[in-house]
Amino acid sequence: MSRQVAVIGGDARYLELIKILKSNDDNEVILCGFDKLEQGFTGLNEVELYELDQSKLDVVILPITGTDSSGNIETVFTDKKINLNEAWFQKLKSSCIVFTGISNDYLTNVTKKAGITLVPLLDRDDVAIYNSIPTAEGAIMMAFEHTDQTVHSSRVMVVGFGRVGNTVANKFSALGAKVSVCARSIRDLARITEMGLRAIPLHELSNYTDDCDILINTIPSLVVTKEAIRNLPTNAVIIDLASKPGGTDFDFAKKRGINAMLARSLPGIVAPRTAGKILANVIEQILDEERE
Amino acid sequence: MSRQVAVIGGDARYLELIKILKSNDDNEVILCGFDKLEQGFTGLNEVELYELDQSKLDVVILPITGTDSSGNIETVFTDKKINLNEAWFQKLKSSCIVFTGISNDYLTNVTKKAGITLVPLLDRDDVAIYNSIPTAEGAIMMAFEHTDQTVHSSRVMVVGFGRVGNTVANKFSALGAKVSVCARSIRDLARITEMGLRAIPLHELSNYTDDCDILINTIPSLVVTKEAIRNLPTNAVIIDLASKPGGTDFDFAKKRGINAMLARSLPGIVAPRTAGKILANVIEQILDEERE
Repeated sequence: MSRQVAVIGGDARYLELIKILKSNDDNEVILCGFDKLEQGFTGLNEVELYELDQSKLDVVILPITGTDSSGNIETVFTDKKINLNEAWFQKLKSSCIVFTGISNDYLTNVTKKAGITLVPLLDRDDVAIYNSIPTAEGAIMMAFEHTDQTVHSSRVMVVGFGRVGNTVANKFSALGAKVSVCARSIRDLARITEMGLRAIPLHELSNYTDDCDILINTIPSLVVTKEAIRNLPTNAVIIDLASKPGGTDFDFAKKRGINAMLARSLPGIVAPRTAGKILANVIEQILDEERE
Repeated sequence: MSRQVAVIGGDARYLELIKILKSNDDNEVILCGFDKLEQGFTGLNEVELYELDQSKLDVVILPITGTDSSGNIETVFTDKKINLNEAWFQKLKSSCIVFTGISNDYLTNVTKKAGITLVPLLDRDDVAIYNSIPTAEGAIMMAFEHTDQTVHSSRVMVVGFGRVGNTVANKFSALGAKVSVCARSIRDLARITEMGLRAIPLHELSNYTDDCDILINTIPSLVVTKEAIRNLPTNAVIIDLASKPGGTDFDFAKKRGINAMLARSLPGIVAPRTAGKILANVIEQILDEERE
């Protein structure tokens, strides 16, 4: 028995995702919002939103960004506007699963009211850890581009030791950078020390930024403060990987003439194919578990 | 007793080199071919070639590229042409040391005739190994830019296990790539195996290229042949790090629609400051040894 999977909107990452979903004979994949896609992408089943009979869908896959607060969807491969209102979700069958990258109040509400399971993929530990690999490679690429020295033997300060911070610290260290990591918990500080890196309590960050060429923030609250920025060498760069608006006092960095950048969606930029594969694998796994 | 050091031509790497040489009070640094340099670069002692009294020079530093076959110098920071003919070299004192990156017949001849020591820096093992670090980082940057998957878990084939190949294999492996290395000698193949990488005898390369996403050549003779290219997957990329004209059958790669790139002077592109530091340190070390 095949299941109907509708992919509604999405970016370059979704091309690999669609390819993998289609390669599974269990899935009947219907695309919506991909009319600008090249012909080379063969065997597409591309429809307009109004042509889609949502009462028959088993799975709906929304873009990584989900919807905005009015149900509009960010689309890359169509110029047409796609809006999913409350009524649209009401017509899905109750066994339908809706995947999104991130959720918001709107999406959480409309799916809850419709009694439908919503899976925000980026909230999952496995997705976050897999995704941290292309994110860290993107951070390395930015370091290559925005400094005039090798990453090897650069002084790198990673702020935060969550799923992203851990991977970033690992990768820069593997390339021969001198890595320090700022964290709050004594457990994390112990682990950082065990890894052979310099562990710095987060509240002491500003006492150590004078000894730093590349500061990489991963904490989504204001932790890279005026004090931390004031002590940085003038040719240091700040790469902020935390979700918008980041954790850096960007205005102050600008005033001091320090190059500070908020990186956006690095997995989709440096490795769309890998990022799509990560999502496809997790979606397939969740659907398999449902079936059992 | 200070020594007169003339830096004649050079690229971005030489700015760091000049800075380091100037910071040593033993050196009186004279620049030639830097008239376009920004004012911010303070305390320059910039002259025209004809103003330079070469009989007083203790050290001459030529660009990485040396001279062409008529004694012309590649300059980045001047529009004026600089030519060093045989007569010019004859007027240097016999104790003068001439540094270049690479040498050619012209340069080897004119310095020999003038009885002067020529040091081609890139021939030295230490410089080549230090330089292999920014070269490898440049190769990683190219991999990021020209593939749509992470370096992590990519299948990387490194051709050659010299000073560059060894570093490249190390760095890609450190980032989690699945690295194979092709080499000729059984000694190298043993070392590659010891490093936990897959060792492949060079003459068998073409039997393994079907299992490769990124092929990185470091051997300056035609080793990436039609046969090797024929078996590559269509979306594979070739990054050729060997000196011009590389070791890849570029025409055949193009015919097969495989993206093959000859990388040029990566240290100067990704890390000019580090590259300059490497040269400065080795020059200082050689001059110190001379003095003892």
